[in-house]
Amino acid sequence: MSASPALRESVESGADPQRLDLRVKRVAIDTHLENVVYLNRDCLIYRIEGFQALSKVDVISGAHRITATLNVVDDPYIVGQDEIGLSEDAFRRFGVDTGAMACVQHAEKPVSIGALFRKIRGERLSKDDYHAIVKDISGGYYSKIELTAFLIATNNGELDRDEIYYLTDAMVASGRRLHWSEHMVVDKHCIGGIPGNRTSMLVVPIVAAHGLLCPKTSSRAITSPAGTADTMEVLANVNLEQDQLAAIVREHRACLAWGGTADLSPADDVMISVERPLSLDSTTQMIASILSKKIAAGSTHLLLDIPIGPSAKVKTVPDAQRLRKLFEYVASRMSLKLEVIITDGRQPIGDGIGPMLEARDVMRVLENDPRAPQDLRHKSLHLAGRMIEFDPDVRGGDGYAIARDILESGRALAQMRAIIAAQGAKHFDPNDFMLGKLSHDVIAERDGMIVAIDNLRIAQVARLAGAPKVVNAGVDLQHKLGDRVKQGDTLYTIYAEFPSDLLFAIQQCDKGSGYLIGDESQISHSYLEF
Amino acid sequence: MSASPALRESVESGADPQRLDLRVKRVAIDTHLENVVYLNRDCLIYRIEGFQALSKVDVISGAHRITATLNVVDDPYIVGQDEIGLSEDAFRRFGVDTGAMACVQHAEKPVSIGALFRKIRGERLSKDDYHAIVKDISGGYYSKIELTAFLIATNNGELDRDEIYYLTDAMVASGRRLHWSEHMVVDKHCIGGIPGNRTSMLVVPIVAAHGLLCPKTSSRAITSPAGTADTMEVLANVNLEQDQLAAIVREHRACLAWGGTADLSPADDVMISVERPLSLDSTTQMIASILSKKIAAGSTHLLLDIPIGPSAKVKTVPDAQRLRKLFEYVASRMSLKLEVIITDGRQPIGDGIGPMLEARDVMRVLENDPRAPQDLRHKSLHLAGRMIEFDPDVRGGDGYAIARDILESGRALAQMRAIIAAQGAKHFDPNDFMLGKLSHDVIAERDGMIVAIDNLRIAQVARLAGAPKVVNAGVDLQHKLGDRVKQGDTLYTIYAEFPSDLLFAIQQCDKGSGYLIGDESQISHSYLEF
Repeated sequence: MSASPALRESVESGADPQRLDLRVKRVAIDTHLENVVYLNRDCLIYRIEGFQALSKVDVISGAHRITATLNVVDDPYIVGQDEIGLSEDAFRRFGVDTGAMACVQHAEKPVSIGALFRKIRGERLSKDDYHAIVKDISGGYYSKIELTAFLIATNNGELDRDEIYYLTDAMVASGRRLHWSEHMVVDKHCIGGIPGNRTSMLVVPIVAAHGLLCPKTSSRAITSPAGTADTMEVLANVNLEQDQLAAIVREHRACLAWGGTADLSPADDVMISVERPLSLDSTTQMIASILSKKIAAGSTHLLLDIPIGPSAKVKTVPDAQRLRKLFEYVASRMSLKLEVIITDGRQPIGDGIGPMLEARDVMRVLENDPRAPQDLRHKSLHLAGRMIEFDPDVRGGDGYAIARDILESGRALAQMRAIIAAQGAKHFDPNDFMLGKLSHDVIAERDGMIVAIDNLRIAQVARLAGAPKVVNAGVDLQHKLGDRVKQGDTLYTIYAEFPSDLLFAIQQCDKGSGYLIGDESQISHSYLEF
Repeated sequence: MSASPALRESVESGADPQRLDLRVKRVAIDTHLENVVYLNRDCLIYRIEGFQALSKVDVISGAHRITATLNVVDDPYIVGQDEIGLSEDAFRRFGVDTGAMACVQHAEKPVSIGALFRKIRGERLSKDDYHAIVKDISGGYYSKIELTAFLIATNNGELDRDEIYYLTDAMVASGRRLHWSEHMVVDKHCIGGIPGNRTSMLVVPIVAAHGLLCPKTSSRAITSPAGTADTMEVLANVNLEQDQLAAIVREHRACLAWGGTADLSPADDVMISVERPLSLDSTTQMIASILSKKIAAGSTHLLLDIPIGPSAKVKTVPDAQRLRKLFEYVASRMSLKLEVIITDGRQPIGDGIGPMLEARDVMRVLENDPRAPQDLRHKSLHLAGRMIEFDPDVRGGDGYAIARDILESGRALAQMRAIIAAQGAKHFDPNDFMLGKLSHDVIAERDGMIVAIDNLRIAQVARLAGAPKVVNAGVDLQHKLGDRVKQGDTLYTIYAEFPSDLLFAIQQCDKGSGYLIGDESQISHSYLEF
């Protein structure tokens, strides 16, 4: 609160504290997502302003400005008295050359801090409040403390549906928004949690072959053994510049790219940095995150897949219906046409879990290979059929047959090959999906019927085996729900590239394979179409 | 999840990753409350383990272990390939000499992380859960993200009264606990928010003169213009070692010391580092913080002062009663005898606001000086009287008269002088409280009665004038609620030591003096005894 004598003198003498300039120095310390600046303890501005270490400061040079955490240095080699050191990350974001002059001042509080405090006290916020908060978050003005406080204070049940809409709208507004100049841009999304569920790589070529525009961008795995981007990357390049992506979509009506570089809903990426370490799985954030990314990507029609099952994210039909209505409400306020489809999430979809294994399954379906997993084929046709019915010229109920025809005729495969070639094919023989050189069979310990498969446990085993980083590691399921097995039959095979990975995965299986063998009466029925 | 090839080889060859030792280097960077370690990007362990910058690591050397944030360095001057650099703070906490060998590994998640996740999901936690969480917090194992998540998830209304008790109990268990070997140890506490409210410095000498044991430790100001420790420090040394403090209490039955060094309820200090930037004012945290500190300090009997008023922390009598019952419930579970007293918080207590000015008021009351502020004297006698009634030999209702007799007879002053001398008197003439050399009178803009005084505004003006850092800065009130004033009369005088401080304070007054002048009907009545 009180200015020190030296600053007072400079204030009284009319000196402008901004004129206490420092020379920019790049300090070779990698502080990852955090901006850190280093000031020498003997530097005049430090002594005058009495900054406390770790307090936040603004660094300014002309129109360049960043907010950073301050570390105080006693070693003139690292920064001298007339220098300001910027960590690699701060230096990159600041965008000013070494040797340029910059000044430093106490960071101003983010403008939305009052709204944050009101939310912490449990009050309802306005649309303007959410816009201000999200703008500050995407601009990097929130500290980790403020960000965490916002996410926990807006956690499950704390926001009403209008507030979720305000948050979604603000997240769209915080970044770029793509425009495809077509009246219909379709997309699909699954809320996740089901290993092997690579329907996008089948649905996209099918609906594109029908003529729908489907510029699909996907994420990489965060906690799962493979994301669509990881799996597609086995077959093709997925890191596309925006121009390149647009050209591919114009020519082929579709793409299957990684969405990470497009600056769509950038606040979402910042929030994930806190959600992940806290394993936060908030409905509010899920709705705002999914819908904002899709709308920013230019989608007009979205098919949303909500799988339910004992080890899925959503466990019961009433929970799924509640979630569906929230999604529908927010989508409708955002003028996005949304269809929700509730699917069977009692077990993994397809056989392979892990990038290479899942790519193999996808290609087998596209190639109408008899070894193709029928559940993956069937589910993908259902989803593609529902998307095809977005087309006003298609009669309700006809979508599935159209999708099946596109797949069986080989048009889907041709479309996929065209997309792969356009994005840049990987040089490997698509008939030779080379799996990890080490493997281990997990076997049935008794005779009986497979009555439950734990999605979480299967995902964990695949990750320990190395997926998604080791692309040819993972799990290949030999049996699914309802299959009868005999003691000693292989339930699934673990593939790994490295002995220690295989060891970790086997140790996990020893605690429980994730398969429950019993009799028919124990199997939980889904009452869902698929 | 997956170990890299190099580590795998070392695992397979039976090599112990812990043997990949690094030489400890002290890096002259002050990272304040955060432990930061620096590894060279080319260092073997970094390449093997594939640590991501800013991930948390454990650094281990024999029995020494700290958890720290990792920064990766590309400059061998800062840290070489075979070195591990520790920031000043990490170095101090690690407690190992430069040149010693240490190893580094991925930080383990705090053991209580599962309980934290359950609380975030809104579940009720058990006593064991709170003990585990608080142990991890006080041990420094929680990141800022985890700490913030805990505080927001346990914010107002989220905990039931048993959970508040569990939290309090855990906070006591997390630190030292003092034992005075007497069956009665008394203390008082005010929940705060009322400028000038320095009753402790009067109550303590009075009750000690009566013979009660009152080892009072206080905090310094955080957001107020003066804490009891700041004000006492005008008269005496308050930084006492535990042995010294114990010796003074044994001889004089009391002390008035700063509580910061005693390691009582250390989790509280960690939590404040997040509560402060978020302006969190959670009932849960207030109760757990106050009661844990008092119980850890060995108190058996506590008098708690809850002031109410339009600009106090608690605004209405029903709110105060609700808070009182929560305090009573938790205190009773903790076997602490608690008396709650709800007081008039409509305006500052006493005349002076700021360390020197408040010390002046306190001494005037002790010296029975006719200039002594009567509200401070009256309130202190009431509080002291209620504490004296903790004495089983005192009849209910007799306390006030006993306290008044102690004060008027000069015994309280003698007791205070003894305490000051024992703690180490400051060398200044106690009849010459030298105030800031600059001053400014804030005057009444109209005739009328003073019908409201804004505690927050008065505190703000005193802080801008320099308090508490500039001990002789602050505000001296000339009129209080109910006084009639004429236009041009001085409402209060601002004292400052430096022109820019005075300027800042005056600018704030120009936006509003904090005084409302009107007529008698506008004054809010308190319906409280004092």
